[in-house]
Amino acid sequence: MFPFKNNIVLVRNSNRNLYLQLCDQIIGFIKSGKLPPSTKLPGSRKLAESLSVHRKTVISAYEELISQGWIETIPTKGTFVTSSLPIVNPKNFVQPVLQNNIKEKSGFSFLTRSHLIRKPKHKIDQKMLVVDDGCPDHRLAPIEEIAKVYRNITKKSHYENLLTYNSTYGNLELRKSLVTYLNQTRGLHITVDNILITRGSQMGIYLNSQLLLSAKNKVIVVGNTNYMTADNTFKEAGARIEQVPVDDQGLDTNAIEKLCKIKQINAVYTTSHHHHPTTVTLSAERRMHLLQLAQYYNFAIIEDDYDYDFHYNNAPILPLASNDDHGNVIYIGGFTKIIAPAIRIGYLIAPKDFVGEAARLRRIIDRQGDTLLEQTLAQMISTGDVQRHCNKVLKIYKTRRDLFCSLLKEKLGDYFDFEIPKGGMAIWVKLNKAYNWDVICNEAEKLDIELNPDWRRYDNDNSRHNGIRMGFASLNEEEIREVIERLVKVFELVKQKHNKLIT
Amino acid sequence: MFPFKNNIVLVRNSNRNLYLQLCDQIIGFIKSGKLPPSTKLPGSRKLAESLSVHRKTVISAYEELISQGWIETIPTKGTFVTSSLPIVNPKNFVQPVLQNNIKEKSGFSFLTRSHLIRKPKHKIDQKMLVVDDGCPDHRLAPIEEIAKVYRNITKKSHYENLLTYNSTYGNLELRKSLVTYLNQTRGLHITVDNILITRGSQMGIYLNSQLLLSAKNKVIVVGNTNYMTADNTFKEAGARIEQVPVDDQGLDTNAIEKLCKIKQINAVYTTSHHHHPTTVTLSAERRMHLLQLAQYYNFAIIEDDYDYDFHYNNAPILPLASNDDHGNVIYIGGFTKIIAPAIRIGYLIAPKDFVGEAARLRRIIDRQGDTLLEQTLAQMISTGDVQRHCNKVLKIYKTRRDLFCSLLKEKLGDYFDFEIPKGGMAIWVKLNKAYNWDVICNEAEKLDIELNPDWRRYDNDNSRHNGIRMGFASLNEEEIREVIERLVKVFELVKQKHNKLIT
Repeated sequence: MFPFKNNIVLVRNSNRNLYLQLCDQIIGFIKSGKLPPSTKLPGSRKLAESLSVHRKTVISAYEELISQGWIETIPTKGTFVTSSLPIVNPKNFVQPVLQNNIKEKSGFSFLTRSHLIRKPKHKIDQKMLVVDDGCPDHRLAPIEEIAKVYRNITKKSHYENLLTYNSTYGNLELRKSLVTYLNQTRGLHITVDNILITRGSQMGIYLNSQLLLSAKNKVIVVGNTNYMTADNTFKEAGARIEQVPVDDQGLDTNAIEKLCKIKQINAVYTTSHHHHPTTVTLSAERRMHLLQLAQYYNFAIIEDDYDYDFHYNNAPILPLASNDDHGNVIYIGGFTKIIAPAIRIGYLIAPKDFVGEAARLRRIIDRQGDTLLEQTLAQMISTGDVQRHCNKVLKIYKTRRDLFCSLLKEKLGDYFDFEIPKGGMAIWVKLNKAYNWDVICNEAEKLDIELNPDWRRYDNDNSRHNGIRMGFASLNEEEIREVIERLVKVFELVKQKHNKLIT
Repeated sequence: MFPFKNNIVLVRNSNRNLYLQLCDQIIGFIKSGKLPPSTKLPGSRKLAESLSVHRKTVISAYEELISQGWIETIPTKGTFVTSSLPIVNPKNFVQPVLQNNIKEKSGFSFLTRSHLIRKPKHKIDQKMLVVDDGCPDHRLAPIEEIAKVYRNITKKSHYENLLTYNSTYGNLELRKSLVTYLNQTRGLHITVDNILITRGSQMGIYLNSQLLLSAKNKVIVVGNTNYMTADNTFKEAGARIEQVPVDDQGLDTNAIEKLCKIKQINAVYTTSHHHHPTTVTLSAERRMHLLQLAQYYNFAIIEDDYDYDFHYNNAPILPLASNDDHGNVIYIGGFTKIIAPAIRIGYLIAPKDFVGEAARLRRIIDRQGDTLLEQTLAQMISTGDVQRHCNKVLKIYKTRRDLFCSLLKEKLGDYFDFEIPKGGMAIWVKLNKAYNWDVICNEAEKLDIELNPDWRRYDNDNSRHNGIRMGFASLNEEEIREVIERLVKVFELVKQKHNKLIT
């Protein structure tokens, strides 16, 4: 007879009921082969006595085990481990399961994505002063207003339906306010049928790449160099990437025309307003050329207008989408840069047929967006709060850009080459080729300053531009001064070491 | 000389500045070929006079056009349309752009997904009484509590960092509370490294299918019949789907074993707790068998435990994941069923190596989750609010199940065949084969009652089970009575018509 008493441990003030603890342990014995199929179990009274529990606990446990199929009652004979359970090879199950068994390795194979970046970091080191590659300052986000509107919405019963399944295209009120907002600020000519609400603009890039490029022999044209995450997303779809040069007018459209003449291209990806990473604005001439090419060769232009709202020297330049008379442009954007990275609401604007197909795909990736937050944003766009916030931070970021650029020029002009960007949140800084970013970043880390890691240097193709993006928008004046000061020290240290090596 | 005066319309109380309106229109003339390259523009004073605007407005407009590259100043000569703009064929651009030009058709080609459902609906008809296929009642969601916690979080400065880019794995506090919650309620043995926070469980299915199945000759085993959206997601990845029978014990694991002997299978998809759509619970014997097969043949088990918390007759049965000693189970679940469909927080639990790869892929689909909402949920799990809510609705849903089933049996027992489900939110109702769901649904619609559309009848393979799922959880007692009453009328009408046809 199996020694239940010695093997069963019941914890009285646990979150799990006594009878369920008993079940768990009996199942464990069955699984481990200690209680083989057809073993007779003790009567409920007897087991209750030996475990010092109420008989009802054992009865409940047995009922539970019967309903789960682990044990069975044979009339007039008693209760037994189910006879039809497969006979278990004890070797497979005999190891005790550790309470905190960290499962490290899968018992199956899966596909790995070597084209994607290394595994995302789990934690960010708080004491580091981070120079990002162009993020907004989340400390300026109007988050209390957002939370207030959000809460007010939850109090109104006519918004109750927002909590259930809703349109995959996104909240209708948000799409309506976007129609007005985008037509006014970007010169678009769209209706609600041209909008799919996405999770940030990244989901827009993903959906586009899957719909345009995920079949054999699909070709996308990008600049050399280009926004790395977009490249990775196109690779994920299996596309062939063709690169064309980027100069001070943006993407070289003549190079695109040459490509079109020799092969079918399916899409061109452009960050027309401020090219990522170099911050160059696509010139008027090339805009027209690109639209003409798209129309003639029937390809899609993915216009990623991630920082349309941040242009400091003059009014923003209307996007290609505002001149798209033939349905060639898919326009993507979002509010992560305007409000905060965590407010992941973006949009994809395209002809209706394409939007419908994108919604179909989005449905199996992520059934729908965050309807309450979408409704919140809709209200804040309609009241003008979003535009007001945008104007406010635009002024702040312009001041930060000017300070960062002037200090960079003044204190570090010998090492860095850069143009003052007309807009956006970052400067494209080229390091004097006598130096190496790896060395600089290493040294910087010792002074608690984090610059862009190697996978964010947009040099996948060894073009050796020796550039990185330095984000100025997320740093306040004090932090900017601190960054520059520490960078000056970094170069002093590097030069000392260098001299030592020489002498 | 181009008649600017007759062609330019400036609206004074518009949202767009006068000088920008002027720019837009001049760009329009350039694009349409009305102002060809090298055309001389009038001086600013002259144009200002003819348009009755301040000269500064024209100067600003010209400066803007210069900075955008549309026009250029030639010293001592004047201002001209940029000479290097490509000569535009007027035919291409001459049509006026309509202010509300609904773009219906794309000027490029893209891939369509015929395996996915029709385009999602834009709007739900409010007056219809909807019998869904197993949704929670969003009216019971603790949304005011959620909004309150959410707002409190935004007020605390130590949560400020939640607004910026955060871990793609999901909010760390949420992962920590899930470790405790899932280990206690599901008998898992996981750590934070085994969790990826997803958008609902649907994103979990999508990530799994892309990582396990998106290469040549990958095979997934599902039940016949099966949750349709899962099937579609596997097809999207390009997988071959093998079906095995489902009986009153769930998936037929002997059939799976036979398959394993003749081909490499990569994964098995199971809704083990309550099979979707039939609501059957996978028996203990088959659970053990399936785990043994997975270990022996090295395949993954995707255990979609979408309604673990809703089991009415006895305690929920621990998931396969709780017995997974060899890293074969990927466990997915979420809070959309417990709280509300719009609270799209789910989780994917797997060995650490797989979780890392899933995070890598998720990063390019949707950079990160909604960190504020994740933090909110973390707190509500830790305080026990989520569990309390769960217990509350469990009782309500049990009452609704009992009422729905007893009325269905009493009033419609001649037409419907069903078992009372042990759990979940829906009943698997088989229609007497003398009738046809299309006819019934049509007739029902006339009485403002919406039953499952044809694509939700889980009969992709013409198995002719003639079943649909009827969700009882989202209807209150009054609505349940109303549904039954109207269905009785539907059958009366159908029978009348039928008799008419016969006589």
